[in-house]
Amino acid sequence: MAEFDLIARIQARSRARADIALGVGDDAALLLPPDGQALAVTVDTLNSGMHFPAEALPADIGWKSLAVNLSDLAAMGAQPLWCTLSLALPRADVAWLDAFLDGFLALADGAGIALVGGDTTQIQGPPSISVTAMGAVPPGQALRRDGAQAGDDIWVTGTPGDAFVALTLWRQGRLDVTVPGPSADLESVRQRLLRPTPRLAAGLALRGLAHACVDISDGLLGDLGHICERSAVGARLRLDAVPVPAAQRRLAVAEDPYAAVLAGGDDYELCFTAAPAQRDAIAAALLAAGTEGSRIGSIVAGDGVEVVDALGHPWRPPHAAFQHFSADS
Amino acid sequence: MAEFDLIARIQARSRARADIALGVGDDAALLLPPDGQALAVTVDTLNSGMHFPAEALPADIGWKSLAVNLSDLAAMGAQPLWCTLSLALPRADVAWLDAFLDGFLALADGAGIALVGGDTTQIQGPPSISVTAMGAVPPGQALRRDGAQAGDDIWVTGTPGDAFVALTLWRQGRLDVTVPGPSADLESVRQRLLRPTPRLAAGLALRGLAHACVDISDGLLGDLGHICERSAVGARLRLDAVPVPAAQRRLAVAEDPYAAVLAGGDDYELCFTAAPAQRDAIAAALLAAGTEGSRIGSIVAGDGVEVVDALGHPWRPPHAAFQHFSADS
Repeated sequence: MAEFDLIARIQARSRARADIALGVGDDAALLLPPDGQALAVTVDTLNSGMHFPAEALPADIGWKSLAVNLSDLAAMGAQPLWCTLSLALPRADVAWLDAFLDGFLALADGAGIALVGGDTTQIQGPPSISVTAMGAVPPGQALRRDGAQAGDDIWVTGTPGDAFVALTLWRQGRLDVTVPGPSADLESVRQRLLRPTPRLAAGLALRGLAHACVDISDGLLGDLGHICERSAVGARLRLDAVPVPAAQRRLAVAEDPYAAVLAGGDDYELCFTAAPAQRDAIAAALLAAGTEGSRIGSIVAGDGVEVVDALGHPWRPPHAAFQHFSADS
Repeated sequence: MAEFDLIARIQARSRARADIALGVGDDAALLLPPDGQALAVTVDTLNSGMHFPAEALPADIGWKSLAVNLSDLAAMGAQPLWCTLSLALPRADVAWLDAFLDGFLALADGAGIALVGGDTTQIQGPPSISVTAMGAVPPGQALRRDGAQAGDDIWVTGTPGDAFVALTLWRQGRLDVTVPGPSADLESVRQRLLRPTPRLAAGLALRGLAHACVDISDGLLGDLGHICERSAVGARLRLDAVPVPAAQRRLAVAEDPYAAVLAGGDDYELCFTAAPAQRDAIAAALLAAGTEGSRIGSIVAGDGVEVVDALGHPWRPPHAAFQHFSADS
């Protein structure tokens, strides 16, 4: 099975588009960027056994390997345009590739991002998948990490922590990542681990509203900390304001339910800051984007993230923020 | 050692540039594409033990992982702009990373390409390095594979086969990839395997002159075959016109010295076609680009690549074109 045949399988499933002068199949793709916009470019890699369970279904791996990159575009307020895919596989497996592409392209089609380049290689180890995603955003409207201002509200979309709960249940042998269910609670967190929804519409809707934005793939505390660091501000996070869904509470995998919420990681929600005067506008923007959002604190002068519990007492996370570079197994 | 620290090391070595609104360190880089140009985008991945010897020096791996991508931009006639880097490593190794970046950035600086995004992850196996490179080319001047015309000359830059000779000597235990020499002959092919020179200046100089172009990373025969397939033409390759350097002849690793030249692969030279009326212009363009080139045949009506030897007899390759998906070890 040669590289060329795998590329041909990708090529056969790629679509013609007006902004693609030449797609997969030459030395490089030729793309036509929209006039007057900045190109947002991000790369993320998922390795089997580290970023997804080795037994995960190829379609789920395909979905997630694109989703984590689209989440970065969402966090910049960028409109997805094109992506490249590098698939390093222990052996050429057409059934695996086709299923992988099913998941990858289902999300790509939904998000309007075109796969314009592919490289398939053999690796002496488990699969490694690297995606580089490109999007467009007017230069002055990009949602950077460095624009937070003291007095801003802090917002988060969705319900952080679900993915961490699912991952923990899987590690405990209580969740099978290859089959649905068996309960509605388990299925709800399983989907959030395997098929996260990048908040693209929310990111676009927040252009011109949010002062700073980040996706919380490394955990809410850690990524909010990135905003503080880059913006040279501090944050005061009201723990009781962070939504914890009933399923997550019922599945409780740690003594402190907020451990998953604050430091779990592998969530692909957006954390952003905006002026209090924009509260109604943001609520309307999120509603239009079909995404729930919660106000969870305030940006303050200073540095670091201070977390206070429902009683106003300081809260300390029971463990450090999720680190990609710690072994998962 | 966290992901963030490795990213910080990359960030510390990246440079400000007018076409980079925001570099490494946010959810995505923000880039400013030149007006009216197409974006050429390519991805190539190198896996330890498959695409380079496991014992290769990290600086050489860094150089080559970018070189193979720049070669694709050269083959499109594109001016390098930006690249992303995914490093999947079995463990966080700062000395390895710094040396890798030494080689990577030495070539990047020389080629004028900026590293704008990095992802460092842990992998349960040997290193895997994926690079996505972006360049600019006026849409109508890109050197595609599909423009060859019957009657065109076929040209090749440099001396194909050197890398294959070096690789074979390494497999035979006659070449150490970690130390220079010991002979000038060995060193000449060693450099060509470990530190190939992408033909960027030649690619730019061939804009408006070449009808079709490809880099011969998969071997001269195979990649010329790609031009024929995409252009719906055939090729007649005059074996005696393909240059074989003295060092390659002296090191002779196969019964037929042309095996390496025609089917060796891992060369990063350009094979292109152009009208005979452009011979002088092409010679001048290659001279200005500091690259040697040879006329090695003609495009003909029909399909496939016919190879004739010095006596005009048909020649058949002793083995199939280099396949990335066959194990190297």
